[in-house]
Order: sequence, then C-alpha cells, then structure tokens
Amino acid sequence: MNITSDALLTDLYELTMAQAYLAQGMTDIAVFEFFVRKLPPQRNFFMAAGLEQVLSYLEAFQFSDADIAWLDQTGGFSPASLSALRAMRFTGEVHAMPEGSLFFPHEPILRVTAPLPQAQLVETRVMNLLNFQTMVASKACRSVLVAGDKPLIDFGLRRAHGAEAGLLAARAAYLAGLAGTSNVSAGARFGIPIYGTMAHSFVQAHLDEAEAFTHIAEAQPRNVVLLIDTYDTEAAAEKVVSLAGRLNARGISIHGVRLDSGDLADHARKVRHILDRGGLTATQILASGNLDEERIQVLVAGQAPIDSFAIGTAMTTSADAPYLDCAYKLQEYAGRPCRKRSEGKATWPGRKQVYRRIGTDGRLNGDIITVEGDCREGQPLLDQVMQGGQRVASPPSLEDVRRYARLSLTQLPAPLRRIDRADPYDVRIAPALTELAEEVDLHT
Amino acid sequence: MNITSDALLTDLYELTMAQAYLAQGMTDIAVFEFFVRKLPPQRNFFMAAGLEQVLSYLEAFQFSDADIAWLDQTGGFSPASLSALRAMRFTGEVHAMPEGSLFFPHEPILRVTAPLPQAQLVETRVMNLLNFQTMVASKACRSVLVAGDKPLIDFGLRRAHGAEAGLLAARAAYLAGLAGTSNVSAGARFGIPIYGTMAHSFVQAHLDEAEAFTHIAEAQPRNVVLLIDTYDTEAAAEKVVSLAGRLNARGISIHGVRLDSGDLADHARKVRHILDRGGLTATQILASGNLDEERIQVLVAGQAPIDSFAIGTAMTTSADAPYLDCAYKLQEYAGRPCRKRSEGKATWPGRKQVYRRIGTDGRLNGDIITVEGDCREGQPLLDQVMQGGQRVASPPSLEDVRRYARLSLTQLPAPLRRIDRADPYDVRIAPALTELAEEVDLHT
Repeated sequence: MNITSDALLTDLYELTMAQAYLAQGMTDIAVFEFFVRKLPPQRNFFMAAGLEQVLSYLEAFQFSDADIAWLDQTGGFSPASLSALRAMRFTGEVHAMPEGSLFFPHEPILRVTAPLPQAQLVETRVMNLLNFQTMVASKACRSVLVAGDKPLIDFGLRRAHGAEAGLLAARAAYLAGLAGTSNVSAGARFGIPIYGTMAHSFVQAHLDEAEAFTHIAEAQPRNVVLLIDTYDTEAAAEKVVSLAGRLNARGISIHGVRLDSGDLADHARKVRHILDRGGLTATQILASGNLDEERIQVLVAGQAPIDSFAIGTAMTTSADAPYLDCAYKLQEYAGRPCRKRSEGKATWPGRKQVYRRIGTDGRLNGDIITVEGDCREGQPLLDQVMQGGQRVASPPSLEDVRRYARLSLTQLPAPLRRIDRADPYDVRIAPALTELAEEVDLHT
Repeated sequence: MNITSDALLTDLYELTMAQAYLAQGMTDIAVFEFFVRKLPPQRNFFMAAGLEQVLSYLEAFQFSDADIAWLDQTGGFSPASLSALRAMRFTGEVHAMPEGSLFFPHEPILRVTAPLPQAQLVETRVMNLLNFQTMVASKACRSVLVAGDKPLIDFGLRRAHGAEAGLLAARAAYLAGLAGTSNVSAGARFGIPIYGTMAHSFVQAHLDEAEAFTHIAEAQPRNVVLLIDTYDTEAAAEKVVSLAGRLNARGISIHGVRLDSGDLADHARKVRHILDRGGLTATQILASGNLDEERIQVLVAGQAPIDSFAIGTAMTTSADAPYLDCAYKLQEYAGRPCRKRSEGKATWPGRKQVYRRIGTDGRLNGDIITVEGDCREGQPLLDQVMQGGQRVASPPSLEDVRRYARLSLTQLPAPLRRIDRADPYDVRIAPALTELAEEVDLHT
C-alpha cells in the first residue's frame, strides 16, 4: 500500500468539482484555510502538527498514468479533464503556523493559496493529515504536562488505526514531548528513539519465570527491563532481586521492571520496597496498561514510585476525542472574500492572520484573529512556508520542532495546563474581520 | 510511505524477544490467538474484519536488506540474529473466522500456529489490522441495522486516522453493508462503488448559487446531487426546482439534493414538499453532517423523508469506542498449553474452537468456547485459512464477504439488533476448557 504518491486518496467530489472548475475556466486564485471549530470537552488548547507531511504531499502531488486510466474507466471524466489532471502539479503558496504551535478554535493554522482546482483537490488529504497529527499531539501534551520530568513512551501501534496512524502518532507524540516509541518503523523513518521491554508471552513460553528474565537480559544486555506481572508481581520482583547478582557478575545490570496490570500505585510501592531491600535502588519502575493523562496524574500526585510511563491506545487514538471538528474552507476566490453561512457552521471570510501577545510573565496573553494586512499588537503566527509549490526553506528537524513544542508548552497560562476544562483562553475577532464578514453577507 | 512490505512496522520488543528465542533455540511451535476481552458500552456483538490484509501481510512477511542494515546500526542485534531475521519468512498455519462473521468477547477469531519467533514477530501488525477493521465493521453494522433499506455512504476519509485508516475503513464499512464510499482510492484498490456530490466551496466560488448548481450538473450529468445548505436550504430547494426544467431539456435529471446542517428532519420535510410541488418527485434527499447510528435511528423512526445517509467521522473513527480491548495471546508452546494470569487480564489456555448453535428461527442460539478436538453441538467457526505460510484457498471476493456479512446480520436475535445495550448473548466455556485452565494453573 504505497500511499504518499496516491493522488486518488481523495473524495470523489473533489475530482468532480475540479472537472467543473476546469470546464468553466474557473482557475483563478482560491484561498482555503484549515481551522478547528471547537475544543473537545476537557481540552484547553490544540498543538499544531502534520504540516511537514502536508508539504511533502503537496510537493509530490500528481496523478499517475494508472490513476488517469482508472478515472477514465469510471466514465465520469472527459478527455479534457483527464488531460488537465494528468498535467496538474501543486503550484500554490502555503502559510502556516509552525508545528508545535499552540492554537485555539477558529484560528487558521494553514492557508492554501492556489488556482481553484488545485486548492480544492488537495482538501481531503490535507485535512486527513492535519486532523490526525494535531489531534494526537494535542492529546499527548496533556500527559506530558502531568508527568512532569518523568519520561513517557509511545506503545500505541497495535491499536492505532492502521499503519500510517501508528507511524504518524509516534511522530506527533514525540514532537509533543514524549521520549520515544516502541514503533521500530517510526524509529527508522523519523529518527525517534525506540524503546522495548518484553511481553507476557515471553514469560509464558518459558517453564520458569526467572529463566525467562535471564534470557531476555542476555538478548538486550544494555537495556534490561523485566515485565513482572505475568503471574504474581511481588513474587517476580523477589526473583529479580535474586537474579541481579548473577547478572551483575556477567556485567549486566537490571535497568528496570515493568508493571502492566492491577493497582499500579500499590504494586509500585511494594516492588520498590523489594528492589530497594535487595540493593537494586537504581532499578527503575516503568508502568503501562491502559494509561492516560488522568491515570498518570493520579499516580504522580499520589507519589507512586514510578519512574516512567508507557502510554498507548488512549493517546494514539485520542480515545476521549478521536477526531477534531476541523474544516478546510474557501475564504476567497478571484479576489472576492467568501464565507459559508450553514446553520452552526458559519465561517469567517478572507485571508486571515492571528496575532498573539505574550505577557511579562512569558505566558500567552490573548490572541486576535484579523484579516491579513491589518497589523495588530503581538506576534503574527502564520508564516509563508511554500511558494510556487516548493518549500521556501528546508524543513526543520523533528528535534527542532520538539524543542519549539516544549517552549510553547512553557508559555501556557497555569489554568490551561490543567487536564480538566478551564475558562477559555482569550481569542478575539478584530473589528476588521467582523466588518469584512458583514460586507460579504451583504453581497451574497 | 510504502507500508505493506514493512516488517519493521512492529514494536521493538517483538524483535528483542525474537533474538532471545533464536539465541535459546526456542523455535518450537507456538499458538497465539486473537480475541477481544469485552464489548464496548452500548455494543452487543462484533463483526470480524481484516483477515484478508493479515493474510497478505503474512504471505509477504520479510525483512529487506535495508531493514537489516537499520537494525544493525542500532547496536541491539547480533550478527546471528540479523542473519536469521533476514532469512525469516512466515511458514505457519492460520485458522480464522471468515470476515463478516459475528463474534463475542473471549471468542478467538484468529489463531496463528508457527515457530515461536515468527508467531511473536507478527503480533503487532496482526493486532493493528484486525483491531481496526473489526472495530469499523462492528460500528458500521449498527448504522446498517437502523437504516433498513436506505443506502449508506462512507464520507469518512478526511477525519480518518491517516491514509490507511481511510482506505481500510472504507473496506470494512462496505463489507458491513454500506453501499459505497467517497474515497476514490478505496474504489480503485478494492472495487468499492464510489459516490460524490459537491462541497460548499463550490457554491461559494460562484457568485450565484443556481449557476453553481448548473455547473456541477454539467460536470457529472449522470449523478447530479446538489448541496443546498450553503446559504438558505429552502431557498436553494426552490432554485433546484427552477433549474430542473432547463436541465431536463438538456437530458440532465437531478438525481438528488444533499442536506448537511441544521435540523435535518425539518429541512427534509420542507425540501421534500418544495421538490414534490415542483414536480421533482423522483429527486432524492441525501442527508449528511455528523451522522451516526443514533441520529439515523431517530430520523428513520421519525419518518423523515430522507432517502440515503452519508456517514463519516463517527463511523470511520468508531468515535464512541475508538479501539477494541483486544489481545493476541500465547496459548500453547511446544505442545504445552499456557495462560496469562495478570489481574483482570487472565486468558483461557490452549488451541480453541467456537461452536455456534442456530435456532429453528434461523437466529444465533448460543456459542460455546472449547478446546480444539472437543466436538460440540453446532457449527465450528474457525477454519484453516493458511498452511505453510500460504493461503489454502484464493481469497473470497469483497462482494462475497459482504453477502456473508449480510447473512450474518440476519441471524442476529432481535435484542442484539438494537443499538443500546441488550442482555449479553449466551457464550459458555466448555468443561474441557475450564479443566485445561485448572491443569495449567497447577503447573505454573
């Protein structure tokens, strides 16, 4: 399933509309913006992610001969349309907030400015990429905020929604501040540090639990993390203590143990006591098993002696909010601002910019959404990242993006750092934008 | 992102464990089974899906030279392990319930019987594939059950979790009984019928809504479905009536209109009245916009004059239950049955079979889970589908799977067809299996 170069990965109506635009000569410049309409319950902010994959998609955008042949046999496309689609490349501009930026409802994080058929055709995949990574990064931040300096590892691949979800979730989570992932392919593709322990099956395949521990230690002597809850957690911790001397004599130290079931705080205390009494004070405790930011917060607040957490399904699927109420909307065509007025789904027209003020305490102090060109106090958040279908600069490294994300999180006002719902952050609509909306409504 | 052939798409611990197994000569036959521990709230059954992709993955399973080189540079693997991994293919057996089968908690739907390192290494991707498609098919069934004979279309790609999720969700939903998808690539890859209408942006890009309707009708004259809620739904319906005569004169009939916002039942009634009064009695009404099985049930029960529904995000992400509590567990190694006893996560040991009785009314009448070889009344549900790493038969067509799924749904007892939680279906554990579990516990 080779997906990156798949221009057919779109909704049929994008192609039908492109055909109509081409037939009518409607190829003037269109401006579409991507934004999220509202925060999921219990969320206080979003973190932008996925831009890098969007830009790669746009740079590579083209229909292959096989794509065109397939479209042809559907009978829905004229020879002129097919020929135009075959020749089409993305030649437009993109403005965007950098990955790792914090943002709020109705603030555009991406603006596409391109001939109408192009800007329309890329809608589906642009949304697909931005929705998913932004969703995961926004979710992962919450665990990062409550975990303090305890490292977090992504274990989510098995219940991610397919392969790409597993890969891009590992990326989005790392960007948001996780320490790494169990996903080997994500390590190979994105350079994310990879982590692994052992499974219950490994213990079960052995007749003796202690023998299983010895075998896995020999197989990964530099990173021995023993899973101790297959049968009896505390009994297994005692076995770990017994083994440690023999392994140490062979130059192998037991880096950690993993707890994956039961009352994690209670087991962690008992296991910590057993390890310490056995002299294994440097052996760490990793917790896993249906963890999310709420459970991590409880464990951290209760001072459970857990050194790091593995989080999987809840983060990778953003289980409490498995999608964003996002949109990619036409804001201007041929120099004419436009807006949608459908009930409950009205949008702000025109090309927009977001200005953000930072307080003297270094924290976010209010955003204002306005029309492009209406300069306001603060920092403009959308930068040009693509011109003529090409990036204006080489992409930042994932490490750089991760550093920017960490900096962004330090700018969060205290109430917004909480994982329950706080009073909303102050985002205003500038008079210039409300005036433009009124003007547009007068003419439609 | 070429994913199918990606053997690195796994958790690091699978590779570490494989290295340990190889080092210890633990290459005897292992049996792993995939099952789901419990039903999500409000769910009454699961529908199996994803087997086809699992078998393709297993047949193609191998590490490339590039994979091995990447693993080598991590420093975590011995030359002997890397050489064994490079040569490894999947040579095992697979038993499974056919796609489209209904199943219940603790019933295995897939059993892998293979040398331990192989059976372990494939765990992550096997789970990733079965969890996702089974989750989507199980969710999509619910809309199919409440919609009766009204066609349903998948519009979920834009908020699917990446590209593969969009493609496989379209497949799982079609298998479960949807009529088709908007996802063009899913049409091209799987032969699923594709459907499309038009977007609000198309209307906005025109100065005049009626002109937009004319242009899209000209671009897809055989399937004109006009989106009428961009500004004022009823006013747009009047425009549709006015246009119909002119389009008819050119041989173009208006197949349908789409409602995407507001009170869908109310708009549908008003629009139906306007269309009928204008003579467009054959013009259908398609509804979309945050639909799920609950909203569809209300619309159908209220006899809203809606002819078909498009469902997107809620189905594709299985928003009320975006993952299954699934597991892939070692049940036997080297002829010795085993089980995990971790708190709250204990499993039934050994190779298992599920027998299902069908009542005289043609409905499901109780399942029993037992050990393989313990024949029980009813139909055994797991069949052998792979031998020596190859399929034992060519794959059924997606149409055949879809027919089987439809038949399966007709076998659901009435209470289980409801979309709220019913009394659980009768699934028993055979004495032979409880005895085996007790025996295993005695020896561990």
